[in-house]
Amino acid sequence: MRHTSFADMNCSLAQTLEVVGERWTLLILRDAFYGLSRFEEFRQSLGIARNILSDRLRHLVAAGILEKVPLHEGAGRYSYLLSERGRDLQPVLLALVQWGDRWRPHPKGTRVEFIDRESRMPVQRLSLRAADGRILAPEDIRVRAGPGLGSGQMVGRLRLS
Amino acid sequence: MRHTSFADMNCSLAQTLEVVGERWTLLILRDAFYGLSRFEEFRQSLGIARNILSDRLRHLVAAGILEKVPLHEGAGRYSYLLSERGRDLQPVLLALVQWGDRWRPHPKGTRVEFIDRESRMPVQRLSLRAADGRILAPEDIRVRAGPGLGSGQMVGRLRLS
Repeated sequence: MRHTSFADMNCSLAQTLEVVGERWTLLILRDAFYGLSRFEEFRQSLGIARNILSDRLRHLVAAGILEKVPLHEGAGRYSYLLSERGRDLQPVLLALVQWGDRWRPHPKGTRVEFIDRESRMPVQRLSLRAADGRILAPEDIRVRAGPGLGSGQMVGRLRLS
Repeated sequence: MRHTSFADMNCSLAQTLEVVGERWTLLILRDAFYGLSRFEEFRQSLGIARNILSDRLRHLVAAGILEKVPLHEGAGRYSYLLSERGRDLQPVLLALVQWGDRWRPHPKGTRVEFIDRESRMPVQRLSLRAADGRILAPEDIRVRAGPGLGSGQMVGRLRLS
């Protein structure tokens, strides 16, 4: 990637952005969640240049988010499948989709509905919840330093001691 | 922004990435959620070049995610505050942080804990839930076309009719 590296930042957000913080990467992952798995499928779905797609797939495989699995049917052909680590990105993708549904909607309504296989009803909007299940707004949340943060590091305006 | 525009893609994920799909932008928003609001605060926290920070703040104000509010104390000084649309990005940021906590952890443990103001207990991990509250895994979710999706458009392997 041609970006400044965020890998040295001791911040879980920066660490995640180091591996998925690129726009094509998130669209490739969207398609992987929709069931696409082959190079040509991704290329056609996204209208993305081959060299960019190759680069992004290689990066996702190196990060352990996609697994590159040879296909039986022919030498040199592969499926790109979501690993457990990749599947765990589902809340990230749904949170992005739900924000777009709300704030950049199509005038005719929802573009794609995500429904529960069992009830066939739409899934809930993602919300932060307290340990007892209460839904929390941004102002209900506080931050505190965990053991992974060194002394002298800042969290917002708080310098940790 | 110097990227290919995603604004023409009829996809809520692409629409969101069009406004926040840039890595510095998400780190600026992290700091806004932590309570930073001034140009110099963001610059010092992020170690970001002035021209990049200016560009990203202007972009966030234009998108209605931050509001630029003049400060009383001096001419030409401003606060950048999260709007409702900006605050609604909280699940996006927390989903990214929680993935980083899990898959790119600090060896000593959690970096920053997000706690509920009332109980002082950590918030729950974000999960997709069915209408009745059941937690859903990726394989429990199906997609279907909503009214905002034109006929002939694809969702993964499904061509909509």
